[in-house]
Amino acid sequence: MSFNRLIDKIIELKNPTVAGLDPKLEYVPQYIRDKYYEQYGKTLEAAAEALYEYNTGLIDAFCDIVPAVKPQMAYYEMYGWQGVRTFERTVRYAQSKGMYVITDGKRNDIGATMEAYAAGHLGVTDIGGEEVEAFGADALTVNGYLGSDGITPLLKVCAARDKGIFVLVKTSNPSSGELQNLELKGNESVYARMAVMCDEWGKELPGKYGFTGVGAVVGATYPEQLAEIRTEHPSIFFLVPGYGAQGGGAKGLVGAFNKDGLGAVVNSSRAIMCAYKKEGCDERDFAGAARREALRMKDDINSVL
Amino acid sequence: MSFNRLIDKIIELKNPTVAGLDPKLEYVPQYIRDKYYEQYGKTLEAAAEALYEYNTGLIDAFCDIVPAVKPQMAYYEMYGWQGVRTFERTVRYAQSKGMYVITDGKRNDIGATMEAYAAGHLGVTDIGGEEVEAFGADALTVNGYLGSDGITPLLKVCAARDKGIFVLVKTSNPSSGELQNLELKGNESVYARMAVMCDEWGKELPGKYGFTGVGAVVGATYPEQLAEIRTEHPSIFFLVPGYGAQGGGAKGLVGAFNKDGLGAVVNSSRAIMCAYKKEGCDERDFAGAARREALRMKDDINSVL
Repeated sequence: MSFNRLIDKIIELKNPTVAGLDPKLEYVPQYIRDKYYEQYGKTLEAAAEALYEYNTGLIDAFCDIVPAVKPQMAYYEMYGWQGVRTFERTVRYAQSKGMYVITDGKRNDIGATMEAYAAGHLGVTDIGGEEVEAFGADALTVNGYLGSDGITPLLKVCAARDKGIFVLVKTSNPSSGELQNLELKGNESVYARMAVMCDEWGKELPGKYGFTGVGAVVGATYPEQLAEIRTEHPSIFFLVPGYGAQGGGAKGLVGAFNKDGLGAVVNSSRAIMCAYKKEGCDERDFAGAARREALRMKDDINSVL
Repeated sequence: MSFNRLIDKIIELKNPTVAGLDPKLEYVPQYIRDKYYEQYGKTLEAAAEALYEYNTGLIDAFCDIVPAVKPQMAYYEMYGWQGVRTFERTVRYAQSKGMYVITDGKRNDIGATMEAYAAGHLGVTDIGGEEVEAFGADALTVNGYLGSDGITPLLKVCAARDKGIFVLVKTSNPSSGELQNLELKGNESVYARMAVMCDEWGKELPGKYGFTGVGAVVGATYPEQLAEIRTEHPSIFFLVPGYGAQGGGAKGLVGAFNKDGLGAVVNSSRAIMCAYKKEGCDERDFAGAARREALRMKDDINSVL
């Protein structure tokens, strides 16, 4: 009912990172793409199969050193229902290798509709009395713009099935402040208010490490806000995007963690997935390059904790 | 590049409404469910096929009187990739019957990731030089919490392919005010600021009726805000949920429209889909009941314009 399982794994592997699986087709080594183009033509089926081979190669390469993966739904929806099937197969494959899976969907809606998202992504769907798991991830990113009606339906599923959610608080992008930094009367910003709401929602999902099951997305690109929210809300666990490719370095991450070195899981997507391009190694060594980058990132972050 | 096609259709049919397609399995007549349980067992496949038969029956029943459908992604994701396949088939079926399709996904992300959503839902996906349409709806609902970085990638696709987006401004749910009604310094509310941002984004997508391609979701349950935003922003087209099932009546909708009777498309989901339950007719007449309710809603709304 919280992030206990994720934090257990972070402690076990001494690695507070998550590998983003955002597989644009152009990231996939050409030899894999060609193999499926030959079989299926240049179709969504071919793309979906190529992404699956790429994903499983990456997971095999780092599942013993990285605690979690974060597939980004946009990159699967882009390839139609065939891509969404690859997403589902990827979730199950990562879990079969012992990884914790955070679905990055930033879902949001209200009441019965949010219950449908909760059932599909974290819970079970009732089919004539049979309970079937549709996607079955361990955690889901969500957007809290709609208020409690959009969050409470998730809390029930998280409590019943030991899952967690990450609510967007202060996102990593340059324009995140357009809305999130606006100052409310009383000098509180919009993102600070969202963090307060996360704390409230989290009370229903306490965890053994002192972190609730309602985490927050806070970008590595805003180190001051990371530290500020950590200080104000010691029980909110962070998902931190923006390390590496988006320009956030390891030093800026320090404030996201508490004195025990816990409190956040830091994401890297492209830098790991496309490490073979940056290294300039043979594309058939894409998985080896991903592992080397994952280890480099682990050491980089641990060096500042 | 705006909502011209939708508004053309609204004028042609004299009906400013959209039928929500939020097909929970429990809404589907039992005889349809049983047919697919027999064929596939109680599985996601069976659910997905039952939903498709239900959706196509509904579309056949009202495609000559209702201009648009709004499938809600949550109710398809709930049934896994099989459900998402039914979503895709539903989009194409509705379009083949001349209907305008608004995908209710409330998607949100930044930069390249938002481009992926834009490609998947409104544009085309590049597969080795081939352009393939993944879902191909006419419009998409989105959440603007991340600021311009989350919206501008959509504008390009809308401009190139004559599509539109609806940004959440003031949602219909009871707790929508928790964040959206907060007052900023200078006495502007968060939702009012979001409306101002919609106006800005919309400048790139002008339309022949004076409405841009960046619309707003504003709930029927908040008639005062509907009227206020209409007055402040004459060029923002509204998608209005909350009529009927959520308690918003036709009278409260008046403020959403301009003096020409244009400016909004009003959604009804459950009241149309489940009209056969409310009527108490034979479930095999579910489509007839949906048509009767769609006509009743049309007359109800036109009576106040």
